[in-house]
Amino acid sequence: MTVSHSATELDKLNIALEEGAFKQISHTLNNTLRPSEVAHLIEKSPPKERHLLWSLIHQDLEAEVLQDLGDDVQAEILSRMNTSEVLAITESLETDDLADVMQQLPETVMRELLRSMDHQDRERLEKVLSYPEDTAGGLMNTDAITIRPDITIEAALRYLRRHDELPEMTDSLFVVSRKDSYVGTLPLTRMLVSDPNSTVREMMATDTPPIAAEMADDKVAQLFEQEDLVSAPVVDENNKILGRITIDDVVDVIREDADHSLMSMAGLDEDEDTFAPILKTTRRRAVWLGINLITAFIASAVIGVFEDTIEKVVALAVLMPIVASMGGIAGSQVLTLMIRGQALGHVERSNAGWLLNREIIVGVLNGLLWAIVVAVIAVLWFQDTTIGIIIGCAIVINLFAAALAGTLLPIILKAWGIDPALAGSVLLTTITDVVGFLAFLGLATFFYS
Amino acid sequence: MTVSHSATELDKLNIALEEGAFKQISHTLNNTLRPSEVAHLIEKSPPKERHLLWSLIHQDLEAEVLQDLGDDVQAEILSRMNTSEVLAITESLETDDLADVMQQLPETVMRELLRSMDHQDRERLEKVLSYPEDTAGGLMNTDAITIRPDITIEAALRYLRRHDELPEMTDSLFVVSRKDSYVGTLPLTRMLVSDPNSTVREMMATDTPPIAAEMADDKVAQLFEQEDLVSAPVVDENNKILGRITIDDVVDVIREDADHSLMSMAGLDEDEDTFAPILKTTRRRAVWLGINLITAFIASAVIGVFEDTIEKVVALAVLMPIVASMGGIAGSQVLTLMIRGQALGHVERSNAGWLLNREIIVGVLNGLLWAIVVAVIAVLWFQDTTIGIIIGCAIVINLFAAALAGTLLPIILKAWGIDPALAGSVLLTTITDVVGFLAFLGLATFFYS
Repeated sequence: MTVSHSATELDKLNIALEEGAFKQISHTLNNTLRPSEVAHLIEKSPPKERHLLWSLIHQDLEAEVLQDLGDDVQAEILSRMNTSEVLAITESLETDDLADVMQQLPETVMRELLRSMDHQDRERLEKVLSYPEDTAGGLMNTDAITIRPDITIEAALRYLRRHDELPEMTDSLFVVSRKDSYVGTLPLTRMLVSDPNSTVREMMATDTPPIAAEMADDKVAQLFEQEDLVSAPVVDENNKILGRITIDDVVDVIREDADHSLMSMAGLDEDEDTFAPILKTTRRRAVWLGINLITAFIASAVIGVFEDTIEKVVALAVLMPIVASMGGIAGSQVLTLMIRGQALGHVERSNAGWLLNREIIVGVLNGLLWAIVVAVIAVLWFQDTTIGIIIGCAIVINLFAAALAGTLLPIILKAWGIDPALAGSVLLTTITDVVGFLAFLGLATFFYS
Repeated sequence: MTVSHSATELDKLNIALEEGAFKQISHTLNNTLRPSEVAHLIEKSPPKERHLLWSLIHQDLEAEVLQDLGDDVQAEILSRMNTSEVLAITESLETDDLADVMQQLPETVMRELLRSMDHQDRERLEKVLSYPEDTAGGLMNTDAITIRPDITIEAALRYLRRHDELPEMTDSLFVVSRKDSYVGTLPLTRMLVSDPNSTVREMMATDTPPIAAEMADDKVAQLFEQEDLVSAPVVDENNKILGRITIDDVVDVIREDADHSLMSMAGLDEDEDTFAPILKTTRRRAVWLGINLITAFIASAVIGVFEDTIEKVVALAVLMPIVASMGGIAGSQVLTLMIRGQALGHVERSNAGWLLNREIIVGVLNGLLWAIVVAVIAVLWFQDTTIGIIIGCAIVINLFAAALAGTLLPIILKAWGIDPALAGSVLLTTITDVVGFLAFLGLATFFYS
């Protein structure tokens, strides 16, 4: 028994796909692999294979596979279905997964879907949909099991036994007052070791407060990480239980948030499908290249101002990329650290001053160190002391600017409601390019004229 | 009741720290905040405040706070303790947390610690320590509850009730044969709804295979994510149960892995403490700047070859950073997507060909698009058709090179056992800089001579 078949299975499937052995593939997809493994397989297949694989899945497995797919792939598959197919597939989804999938549907299909649901399901779904996707309310499921504080553990156990099964990831019951107000949490592990005659109130835990439905999803993730939670109750402003959040959904938030910084810094979307089709990819990338082209032209314009100086001393053209590059590298280090710090909730007003201070000192120290190294090499290379002094000074200036920009940009952008991971790197490069060329060529103009 | 006090508490604490109101701070740390919140507070404080806060924590809370701290901060705090303090603090840690902390200790303290433990604890710890930190064995805890398949559910419930408490994150019991071989998993949720007279064998689940102790931690994380697990059994090569992995430790792996790509691409360590002291930070950053300086000098050397051409046509110096910059941006987009794809397990030999193909087409398409835009601007700017043609061709060539390098570098580096996130961006920039300058200035030399 091995833990994951998918690595070798993929190779086998590829061969089978090439040979057109669809019966064999269909058997593997529907009988050998688990739905999550099928989803993983689909995600790592190029578009053509992807649709072939999807078409070979049994109808009763489709819903399970669909909910395990990334947003981008999900949207692509849903877009090829007609309304009745969408209705059939969404029937068996849980509320929170359904709410996620619904975001990918066109308005008309979504309305059709809501109409086709029974009253209770629609009400639950609408409750979840009424909160933004990136809040606790949007993450929650409505399948929490609640009990009263005044019954005995024995009665609570009897109550549980009346269920055919408990919802997945149920690690605790939520204790509510007669008015559905949250009172406390009763972990199953505690129930199982309690004296059956003790009451729920005696055994419940009250140390972890419930989550407000409006809480941002990254705060929810922080709370789950800090408190090692498996599930937690979600309440409205009146402390009334609305549902619960489970760790599997929180893990998705953590993965997406962490991916977000990485992908955004390269101008990519965190939902970006690794195997997106050519035209979609070209279009998305073109936008980012266009934005960066503006940056590049600004830098060129700065160089253009100093054409006469460069004509006199061509060595300047040879060395100038070094100044800009060192500034860019130093700046992205600071920027990356700040963006991660913001994501982890480490950076805030009260410690920003300390960080700025440290970064400036680090920037100047590294500036001095590398300024000397570069200056010595430049002097030896071009047999010109002046150019060594100029490039040394320019590097110190640019690393100072990089520290300043790397620290302050994310703080300012965040305060303005702009995503620092997305806008930060373009702005930073603009600053380090402009300051780098300006300092280096400006000093050169002064010294050589 | 609010969910997280830490935001406002930090401001209050800062004021209190400035005023020297240590009694008040100590009260907040030890009575108002949860240990995980104290850890979060310490992590987001500069070094001086950090040590002050640590010194104000009650001794019996220290262990709990310590295990919630990041590796870097943990090591820093442990390094200031003497052996007996370390022994005292580590007494109350769980096996897997203890194993983590031990990695931060000097050899002598570690041996002392092992000697001071009782036989059973030492044996357990040595079992965990015998596996590398980044494998299932290194992640696991030894507190799994095991039962036999042939007893009834009622007997199993009675057995549980004999415990004072169950280990944290216990969502299922592991069913083992008389020889301790793993047989299946019995979720608590299923136990609670089962007929008490049915046997464990009838009710247990056997669909999720156990995890091999040698499995890499990122594979473990993928499995937990795919299967929505809360805990899973770890077995040795003979299918004998060694322990269990719980979702809280997996969440840490996911967070660290995701951070790893982001931080490595900027030459930072994923454990990097946001508030690391100045000298440590300067040293770490200096190394990265030095490596990148070599790249910059290689690019300069390429420009140096064409000094004569630049002297003749200074506009080349003005426009050349655009070619290099567009290549760098396009290349990092591909590189980032590939690195994320590798981390998610999407990229492998069988689909690398498709990816390379797509990236080259996307690169050439975007190359053509932006080549035209840049060429037109260049012609208008410098009133010279030749320079437009030259820069257009150079951009297409460089975006082609960027697609090639961005796709192939991560695959080659990974095959060689080198971390693509760390080495990829430096190598990529070297390639796009060199190809960019070579294509642009080379074509220019040909056309203008």
